[in-house]
Amino acid sequence: MNRPNPTCVAVLVLFLSAAAFVADGAALVFQTDFGLKDGAVSAMKGVAHGVDPRLQQFDLTHEIPAYNIWEAAFRLKQTTSYWPAGTVFVNVVDPGVGTERRAVVAKTRDGRYIVTPDNGALTFLAVSPGLAEVRVIDAAKQRLKGSEESYTFHGRDLFAYVGARLAAGKLAFKDIGPKAVDDVVRLSYQPAVLSDGVLRGNIPVLDTQYGNVWSDIPKKLFNQLSPRFGETFAVTVRCSGTNIWSGTMPYGATFGAAPPGGPVLYVDSLLEVAIALNQGNFAAKHGVASGPGWSIEIRRPEKR
Amino acid sequence: MNRPNPTCVAVLVLFLSAAAFVADGAALVFQTDFGLKDGAVSAMKGVAHGVDPRLQQFDLTHEIPAYNIWEAAFRLKQTTSYWPAGTVFVNVVDPGVGTERRAVVAKTRDGRYIVTPDNGALTFLAVSPGLAEVRVIDAAKQRLKGSEESYTFHGRDLFAYVGARLAAGKLAFKDIGPKAVDDVVRLSYQPAVLSDGVLRGNIPVLDTQYGNVWSDIPKKLFNQLSPRFGETFAVTVRCSGTNIWSGTMPYGATFGAAPPGGPVLYVDSLLEVAIALNQGNFAAKHGVASGPGWSIEIRRPEKR
Amino acid sequence: MNRPNPTCVAVLVLFLSAAAFVADGAALVFQTDFGLKDGAVSAMKGVAHGVDPRLQQFDLTHEIPAYNIWEAAFRLKQTTSYWPAGTVFVNVVDPGVGTERRAVVAKTRDGRYIVTPDNGALTFLAVSPGLAEVRVIDAAKQRLKGSEESYTFHGRDLFAYVGARLAAGKLAFKDIGPKAVDDVVRLSYQPAVLSDGVLRGNIPVLDTQYGNVWSDIPKKLFNQLSPRFGETFAVTVRCSGTNIWSGTMPYGATFGAAPPGGPVLYVDSLLEVAIALNQGNFAAKHGVASGPGWSIEIRRPEKR
Repeated sequence: MNRPNPTCVAVLVLFLSAAAFVADGAALVFQTDFGLKDGAVSAMKGVAHGVDPRLQQFDLTHEIPAYNIWEAAFRLKQTTSYWPAGTVFVNVVDPGVGTERRAVVAKTRDGRYIVTPDNGALTFLAVSPGLAEVRVIDAAKQRLKGSEESYTFHGRDLFAYVGARLAAGKLAFKDIGPKAVDDVVRLSYQPAVLSDGVLRGNIPVLDTQYGNVWSDIPKKLFNQLSPRFGETFAVTVRCSGTNIWSGTMPYGATFGAAPPGGPVLYVDSLLEVAIALNQGNFAAKHGVASGPGWSIEIRRPEKR
Repeated sequence: MNRPNPTCVAVLVLFLSAAAFVADGAALVFQTDFGLKDGAVSAMKGVAHGVDPRLQQFDLTHEIPAYNIWEAAFRLKQTTSYWPAGTVFVNVVDPGVGTERRAVVAKTRDGRYIVTPDNGALTFLAVSPGLAEVRVIDAAKQRLKGSEESYTFHGRDLFAYVGARLAAGKLAFKDIGPKAVDDVVRLSYQPAVLSDGVLRGNIPVLDTQYGNVWSDIPKKLFNQLSPRFGETFAVTVRCSGTNIWSGTMPYGATFGAAPPGGPVLYVDSLLEVAIALNQGNFAAKHGVASGPGWSIEIRRPEKR
Repeated sequence: MNRPNPTCVAVLVLFLSAAAFVADGAALVFQTDFGLKDGAVSAMKGVAHGVDPRLQQFDLTHEIPAYNIWEAAFRLKQTTSYWPAGTVFVNVVDPGVGTERRAVVAKTRDGRYIVTPDNGALTFLAVSPGLAEVRVIDAAKQRLKGSEESYTFHGRDLFAYVGARLAAGKLAFKDIGPKAVDDVVRLSYQPAVLSDGVLRGNIPVLDTQYGNVWSDIPKKLFNQLSPRFGETFAVTVRCSGTNIWSGTMPYGATFGAAPPGGPVLYVDSLLEVAIALNQGNFAAKHGVASGPGWSIEIRRPEKR
């Protein structure tokens, strides 16, 4: 009498598996240069919600400067690894919408998916963690039904739709379209180097809200100088070769290593070297921006 | 032994139905002119989450310019049809809060619900897809318990609360209040027309982020001119009758039909005619804005 | 035959309990001064989603002015009570990140949880509804695994992680760390007072989007003057003792008590006294701001 009814248990197990899938709460994360003033982001989310209302939808940012593929690529590098494996990112910074640029889905080596125009947005992820496989979206087959007459909003009609179906388990990665034969498009840049005791790197982005200046010099490379907290370093910021700012500053674990308003060298939250003013805005005060052309040089000060 | 236990199956079926309801993930979508700098939007979402934590809450935009009912009406037109039927929208652009303006819930002919002050926000949806039925909210009965002393935040105390209860299935559409006898308030505007080969329309909004200029001339009306891709058209933009910009441009499927920086005529993502600069900002460069008073005229250039 | 199988029912009941927990849709609400232009907020949400994908994640605001603890404290006061008991708030306005300031979780007397640096952010909640208990986060034990090398992003590595585990039921309040012995840090301010028929209060924030000027004078205190709707009051706004604006205005239930553009005294959505221009921007027109140093005085006009 108290023995479980096997069929009942079987049905329950089946249902629990389905529920487990739901409970997974697959995440779909959007990044665009649309801003939030109009209805474009909402239209994309509506399409995705229509694919599967159980999807959990999030934003990376919608404030990528218009057409700025470089920054889009960097923000993907900054965040994807903090989301669980299986998360699907939809990136729509797409100055070439409607032209022949490829639409792709990349699977990274650490198991995240990026749905994006192939225009350089994968530049940094292709270096680390690397791309396990790239599929070219078959746009004719995969687009939102009824959207054939619209040519200028692939974010809604193609990328959000494909991303949502992939995240919801309604479209398998292998069914997206053929494997990419050519490598993804990569923006050209010179990776950070250490040579003769001088570190040279780029300033890919600013920590916008606070005006901190982030380099792409990894902590590991910096560590080859065996820096100690409190030690002074000489820093030069250049734009297209012109000196914008030069000075010395302490290396600190946190901003508090400098007096309020003073410059400090530290390791940022991506474990790369950065400079800041303690409770101030370095970029605004010293006219520093970011992107291709902006570089930084770090060395020990010359002995006198 | 392997035969299903009927009671067990019955219980399971009941439970699966309930679960299916949960899985529906009913969507509640907010639009306001509050901005995101303070706690107003969050207070509304807290109220809705308290009604039913299974609701999926989204944003249309909170950056409608303060008191701009025209733009609120347009953003609803731009997005509601991309969300699944049954989605509930809460619109709080409400310069008349606390006055005698009606609070209503409109059900569109395609099955979306709009909770809104009746101040013109339904102007465009009333034209297409049309309103199936409008109910006047009985504010005394339906407002958030304990909010009686607050007169100035109907977004939180009335609209969010009613919208959440409707989306969660805790308030039936028919129980919201009496059917509206009078038509909803409509903003006055002249719909687009084609006459003697000249298309005349309005500029309801800009594609803000990129500065593209959207008209309300439907592609179908434009097609009566039998335009071909690559063909040149003459375009004039006026504000209150004054010429702001005149020129010719190619008709393209996408922005790439013009050289970088050049003007192009295209069909936007709402399938209406628009003009843009390829990779540029038409509105900023030529001082074009949108709203009542802004109009556009499109024709074939005169033969010489 | 139709009798329920007890084991089956037992299993179902167990499952329903689990499902009920899921259905609870525990809310995690973020407030920061990060802005939304970069990936910082998204990295925090990714960490929280990795803790439990069933969490419902929301935003209070990310537009707290950089390092402005006062405004962060006020926004918590403005919103927490509108979310259901059990909601977990994560506040990351943290100019002292990496210094010795404590990281705490406060449980309010009405059952909300606030995960925050102990830097004054709890000032207003400590007054009302009051704090039931404060726990100091044991940062060494509780931080995100693998984040030990990063010192500057406690929002992601500590606060989001702890908040998510608390909301998901994976970390009990009592296990966060030891009970706080010292009181939480409180920003100094003079609460509103009524004396000799004159109300004196502060201007903690503006209703930013509309330029309305909010005081911290409770409606209850104002009511001791027995004000009637339509009655005129004299209002003075000062900054550090200097008169910024003086004038008279009617007391209205809503903005409509004044003619368009005219000043009005009303009770705001937090049930505190405020002044506004009907359909205008008081703060912008009269150069009024908010924060420590800004005060307001309200009295009946002198008889002549």
